[in-house]
Amino acid sequence: MSDVRVAARAAREASFALAASPSETRSAALLAIAGALEAGKETIFAANRLDLQAADDLSAPVKKRLRFDEAKLADVLAGLRALAAMEDPIGREQMRTELADGLVLSRVSCPIGVIGVIFESRPDALVQIASLCLKSGNAVLLKGGREAMHTNEALFAVMEKASLEAGLPAGWAGLLTTREDVRGMLELDEDIDLIIPRGSNAFVRMIMDNTRIPVLGHSDGVCHIYLHEDCDPEMAARVVLDGKTQYPAACNAVETLLVHAHATQALVAAGRALADAGVRIRADARAQAVLAAAAVPCEPADASDWRAEYLDLTISVRVVDSLDEAIAHINRYGSHHTDCILTGEEDAARRFFARVDSAGVYQNCSTRFADGYRYGFGAEVGIATGKLHARGPMGVEGPCSYKYILRGHGDTVAQLADGRRTFTHQKLL
Amino acid sequence: MSDVRVAARAAREASFALAASPSETRSAALLAIAGALEAGKETIFAANRLDLQAADDLSAPVKKRLRFDEAKLADVLAGLRALAAMEDPIGREQMRTELADGLVLSRVSCPIGVIGVIFESRPDALVQIASLCLKSGNAVLLKGGREAMHTNEALFAVMEKASLEAGLPAGWAGLLTTREDVRGMLELDEDIDLIIPRGSNAFVRMIMDNTRIPVLGHSDGVCHIYLHEDCDPEMAARVVLDGKTQYPAACNAVETLLVHAHATQALVAAGRALADAGVRIRADARAQAVLAAAAVPCEPADASDWRAEYLDLTISVRVVDSLDEAIAHINRYGSHHTDCILTGEEDAARRFFARVDSAGVYQNCSTRFADGYRYGFGAEVGIATGKLHARGPMGVEGPCSYKYILRGHGDTVAQLADGRRTFTHQKLL
Repeated sequence: MSDVRVAARAAREASFALAASPSETRSAALLAIAGALEAGKETIFAANRLDLQAADDLSAPVKKRLRFDEAKLADVLAGLRALAAMEDPIGREQMRTELADGLVLSRVSCPIGVIGVIFESRPDALVQIASLCLKSGNAVLLKGGREAMHTNEALFAVMEKASLEAGLPAGWAGLLTTREDVRGMLELDEDIDLIIPRGSNAFVRMIMDNTRIPVLGHSDGVCHIYLHEDCDPEMAARVVLDGKTQYPAACNAVETLLVHAHATQALVAAGRALADAGVRIRADARAQAVLAAAAVPCEPADASDWRAEYLDLTISVRVVDSLDEAIAHINRYGSHHTDCILTGEEDAARRFFARVDSAGVYQNCSTRFADGYRYGFGAEVGIATGKLHARGPMGVEGPCSYKYILRGHGDTVAQLADGRRTFTHQKLL
Repeated sequence: MSDVRVAARAAREASFALAASPSETRSAALLAIAGALEAGKETIFAANRLDLQAADDLSAPVKKRLRFDEAKLADVLAGLRALAAMEDPIGREQMRTELADGLVLSRVSCPIGVIGVIFESRPDALVQIASLCLKSGNAVLLKGGREAMHTNEALFAVMEKASLEAGLPAGWAGLLTTREDVRGMLELDEDIDLIIPRGSNAFVRMIMDNTRIPVLGHSDGVCHIYLHEDCDPEMAARVVLDGKTQYPAACNAVETLLVHAHATQALVAAGRALADAGVRIRADARAQAVLAAAAVPCEPADASDWRAEYLDLTISVRVVDSLDEAIAHINRYGSHHTDCILTGEEDAARRFFARVDSAGVYQNCSTRFADGYRYGFGAEVGIATGKLHARGPMGVEGPCSYKYILRGHGDTVAQLADGRRTFTHQKLL
């Protein structure tokens, strides 16, 4: 058997024990991992230096993500301790119904089982993802970016040792290291319940097209801000600037600005703020006319701009004649990630919330808020842009499912089918 | 454009209006459909006679499912009226958190969008599925079995006319009629959010392997009953008989009986009840020895029996030495559908509930209870054996997703990143 097959089988076996483990065991393991990472930090930092040396010719942002230092460690430890203190997401009774006298149905949250996560070269992500899976009682197979290989191996070794000593079942977490491991994982639909790929759009699609295992991930992040006719110019400038420039490479950065034909002042204010920040503006003819009249530099947009995920200091701008035209544009060209309306009109906001088919629908704030930490989930295993299972940033509830528990006293369906007994269907919870 | 492409596009357009429709409109449409079906019943019965005539050489159970008469109509009307009275599953606020002063995040349930359902030759299923989708604000594409073609067309025509007159958006429901339509549907991942195939295992797998659209369905129904060492023989006989014979062709019928080595009396009682009902028993060597000593007829099982979904009057029997061996057998050979333990020991039941990885885990009752109607959901759009999104019978919550709504006053991430403001993450709901 290949390594990945062995790891997946071990994870499956461990998943049954983990699903039945008390909350205290999982919380104690999280605290033990925190303690061990703190005690073993010099080994981890040394491993990280190896990765950083090898990454010398990579870009500054990549190196920043790759770095694992005291500051990153402090964040990781805070995250582990916060997670340990959180309420247990599994074993929660979500509903209870008496089906017939003495026959009671409950729905109870439970782990999904075995989750495979493929993530970028950010070593802190390894601990975050593993700890969210552990808290929710899931076994996990981890494959990080190869640039972080030494750091990941050091972190994994510390985490594994501490968690097994704290009583977790052997094999609950597995570290995969090669591309062949990823390919192998895609075939193991018997032993892996879910794959969460984090990375480029093309990569996520490649995974989806090559496995029978359910995949939760996001495709593009083509996010919109729409300036409604009453939009305040100062707010437009501030929020659009933040959405575009606070971190342009993120999937929740804004890519297209839609502007009501009457909101010309807001368009000029936002355009000027963007241009001053060095943002390239690609505008349709009507927006160009407004911006040119105010001496804001811009260039003509073409049809391909409406679907573009720039991920840099570029934005497209289009003028629309109504709220409904803005909504139709977003549903047609967007990626169902996060879209925002700037307005003081509550009716317009409500219509926008109800009709825009996206994981996040915002009013008067930056699209950059779409993130597990900012949502108060502690961290995220990923962001889902699909509508099945989970949507948006996935915290500790993302890796949870539920099961139905039915308890009787020898009850048969025949008794109820032939009328000797009747269904009561009384809601108890 | 092909018919199915036109129907899917229309459904997508309608889905936005439907998602924003008030609960009253959807409830009124359900009542209008009920009234129109009652008023138009003679046309529908006439269409059904055509289908029944053409089905003359089919089996009695198939003809029974195909028949649409006063009794089936009464059930359908009762279902529609019950659904109209139910609380709205969409627009429910599931959580609310203040992220920072004045910036409030809500999670609100919403429809999935457009759902394609492929179902068996049972005309009442058409109305049940369409009405569950309508109640939950989803547009639906319906493809029923061709044996029910005339009845489906008559039902659909009445339903469509009544619902449009009640104010639903044109195109919210579409009727597909050919196999080419099903193939066409599988390619429309832009306009269809979810496919629910009901039918044989091979058919469901074929759908899963040929589309990028998420599929919710069930694979096999290999359900188990485990007789624990303290199991009462009378209860064993009663519950096992019901699980196997009350309707053997259903996916929730029991296929394998696991028996603790000390529960020989229960094994004999269950075996005798099964044999008396004409059930063929395929037993492992230890079970054979017990049954033969009690003069209960049986034949030797082989390894293939543990994965068999007989769907007829056949059952496999295996003796195990412990609860954990039974659990391991179920997790290894079962299909994660519904599994039951017969015991009075609460600790054993709890261990079984926690460790058996199935949608339904039962104590002291028949596996045949796994069904949307019996669970009190009114009806079901399908049963899911996967662990993502929905699990078990899916009622009106099956076709629901959620979205995050964030409302602010010009809030930027930059203010929070640079420390001018701080996250509060105060749970409000």
